[in-house]
Amino acid sequence: MRNAIVGQSGGPTSAINATLSGVIKACCKSSRIDKLYGMKNGIEGLLLGEIVDLSYLYEDEKALSQLENTPSSALGSCRKRLPNLDGDISAYEKLLAILEKYDIGYFFYIGGNDSMDTVKKLNEYVKQRGISLVVVGIPKTIDNDLVITDHTPGYGSASKFISTTIKEIACDCSVYRVNAVTIVELMGRDAGWLTAASALPKHFCGLGADLVYLPEVPFYEDKFIEHVKEALKKHPYVVVAVSEGIKYENGEYVGAGKQSGATDAFGHKYLAGTAKQLEALVREKIGCKVRSVELNLPQRCSAHILSDTDINESISIGKYAVRLAEEGQGGKMVTMVRAQGEYKIEYSCVDASQVANKVKLVPKHFINEDGNNVTEECINYIAPLIMGERKISYENGMPVHFRIG
Amino acid sequence: MRNAIVGQSGGPTSAINATLSGVIKACCKSSRIDKLYGMKNGIEGLLLGEIVDLSYLYEDEKALSQLENTPSSALGSCRKRLPNLDGDISAYEKLLAILEKYDIGYFFYIGGNDSMDTVKKLNEYVKQRGISLVVVGIPKTIDNDLVITDHTPGYGSASKFISTTIKEIACDCSVYRVNAVTIVELMGRDAGWLTAASALPKHFCGLGADLVYLPEVPFYEDKFIEHVKEALKKHPYVVVAVSEGIKYENGEYVGAGKQSGATDAFGHKYLAGTAKQLEALVREKIGCKVRSVELNLPQRCSAHILSDTDINESISIGKYAVRLAEEGQGGKMVTMVRAQGEYKIEYSCVDASQVANKVKLVPKHFINEDGNNVTEECINYIAPLIMGERKISYENGMPVHFRIG
Repeated sequence: MRNAIVGQSGGPTSAINATLSGVIKACCKSSRIDKLYGMKNGIEGLLLGEIVDLSYLYEDEKALSQLENTPSSALGSCRKRLPNLDGDISAYEKLLAILEKYDIGYFFYIGGNDSMDTVKKLNEYVKQRGISLVVVGIPKTIDNDLVITDHTPGYGSASKFISTTIKEIACDCSVYRVNAVTIVELMGRDAGWLTAASALPKHFCGLGADLVYLPEVPFYEDKFIEHVKEALKKHPYVVVAVSEGIKYENGEYVGAGKQSGATDAFGHKYLAGTAKQLEALVREKIGCKVRSVELNLPQRCSAHILSDTDINESISIGKYAVRLAEEGQGGKMVTMVRAQGEYKIEYSCVDASQVANKVKLVPKHFINEDGNNVTEECINYIAPLIMGERKISYENGMPVHFRIG
Repeated sequence: MRNAIVGQSGGPTSAINATLSGVIKACCKSSRIDKLYGMKNGIEGLLLGEIVDLSYLYEDEKALSQLENTPSSALGSCRKRLPNLDGDISAYEKLLAILEKYDIGYFFYIGGNDSMDTVKKLNEYVKQRGISLVVVGIPKTIDNDLVITDHTPGYGSASKFISTTIKEIACDCSVYRVNAVTIVELMGRDAGWLTAASALPKHFCGLGADLVYLPEVPFYEDKFIEHVKEALKKHPYVVVAVSEGIKYENGEYVGAGKQSGATDAFGHKYLAGTAKQLEALVREKIGCKVRSVELNLPQRCSAHILSDTDINESISIGKYAVRLAEEGQGGKMVTMVRAQGEYKIEYSCVDASQVANKVKLVPKHFINEDGNNVTEECINYIAPLIMGERKISYENGMPVHFRIG
């Protein structure tokens, strides 16, 4: 028996700790894995030797159940990438020395497409050197933009929060008799998956986002104003959902005018202010009451309203990753495969190299012809992912969260 | 037996429909009240004769239970005021003619301090004319800024959402090793009650807003930057909660630089961008990663996370208003009185004229000396109001809401 280590990387989600719990539960039962360690702040902490023994959580059902309902990355996160293998490989040597010290034979990395790059590179490195280390990637991202897997853990809970909040906002906005437009900005720089979830309440309950704009289709100001005017003819309140990443035909971000100019560690520009831009546009062109709302961080951390489907899948995918590791399937990322007919997910895997650095956009047939809403096929794709409510424990009127160490 | 009418006015909350339910339940049991009508969009709809018979909901337990968990004003709302009595009184005459037509002897108006002005004026009018109409005001506002009553229905649920969300945001922000400041903007133009609720998670759970700025104390940029730098010495993530209405010593709003310039029907300026201003300040003066989050509308409509205490009180206050009406106590607003010792609320009343157009600020002894947090006395005041979770019904993965008519 050898030991295993697990890390979390990239932007946190409400479901990434459920996957961690799944890994812990499966390692506990494994006949090949002894101790499970956690790297603090992903490979950034690992390179500093910051490791915590997670075996104390084996079979602590209560702690694991709390962990499953805790948002954010309980082990901490990082946005560090490993260098290319044809460059300076000292980081790899350092990393392997630490893993050897702890007799680690299994390496689990939970993250998005940037993290799958780490899985791919580390796997190539150990293969080249003949080192016995099974590296397995486990997907997570609220953005749902990983290729091949049917969807990603974390997306369902984010979508449940978004569809619920859009429904509540539409309720709130529908009380006055004067024309009023409310523009809600959702996360999603390139892919409109989160914004698409805002279409659910109107479809199922008749009250929600009247117009939905995704970054997959070019945004035209004049068409947008026409759509809003049309919608105002039906009822005085109009709710518009827009992705932060919508772009004009020339590729320029709509929010560019008011964005902060800051960039993250990978050079991606922070976008903010798309809804604010459209608010100003509606005020100028239509002149009615208008306001903008940015749902912001709560989209990825509102663990008080988790999708039970999402959390159960997130646990299962963690367990399945351990099975892959036991089978020696290095360099793989676990995937979810949706069965035909009634909603059901089975787990499989794919080479992490096929996922790394790629982005899955909302396909054309999920978007309507006018480019201002999603199709029923899209609704049918998202709807099962938000089903079920997780039972949350409260203390002092607030949800209980679990902290490691 | 005569009939009664009820209306909702001002900004909606997550609890205003629970109060409506309380009124319905008590009218159903009343030996003096026959039918209960609802005015659509408050007195604005009433003046147009837009009235709905609510008696069909008498004893419909399921519908009333759904109504209690529905955010926003189920009857619609308005921001209309009645004119002064020494001016043009045609609106009063029109209104009374409609009330007479429906044989209405009891008038319930649920709202904030602007709505209490309506209660006061209408009561004065009917008294002057010797008209038999009992006018009773019922408080609601997430802002908690009504005088005399211990707190207002709606504030507890808004505070539960805020304290929970701040806790989750702090979880989310605590995952990286680099210095990062997250500034969260809360509602509250003059009174800092909602922002004060963001102090709860750190107090009870050790993770939450590290700094809390209310509009009741002048804001100094240099002191703020010092506070943030001090906080960054303790841990790399710092969460700051600010009220939208914080002002410099000269009375100018901090958010003035980026506010839209729009005003509401009462001439109040819309504020937006206080956190954005501070984000720019931190970037300039400290230079670390910084972002701003505006919790916005979800503060007043996130009915998926209601305070059970708040909803039960909101129902009770509606029932108590009917009792006051039966006793003929016109021109009153129901108040909540907190008992000494263990948390318990009793109901009483006060002349609406004593509440109308007044604002209750967070008192000095609720704010710490540095002006960057609240005191334990403030925490103890808010804590009981967010206790208990309401059981919410879901359909299609989203909360079920009730629509009237």
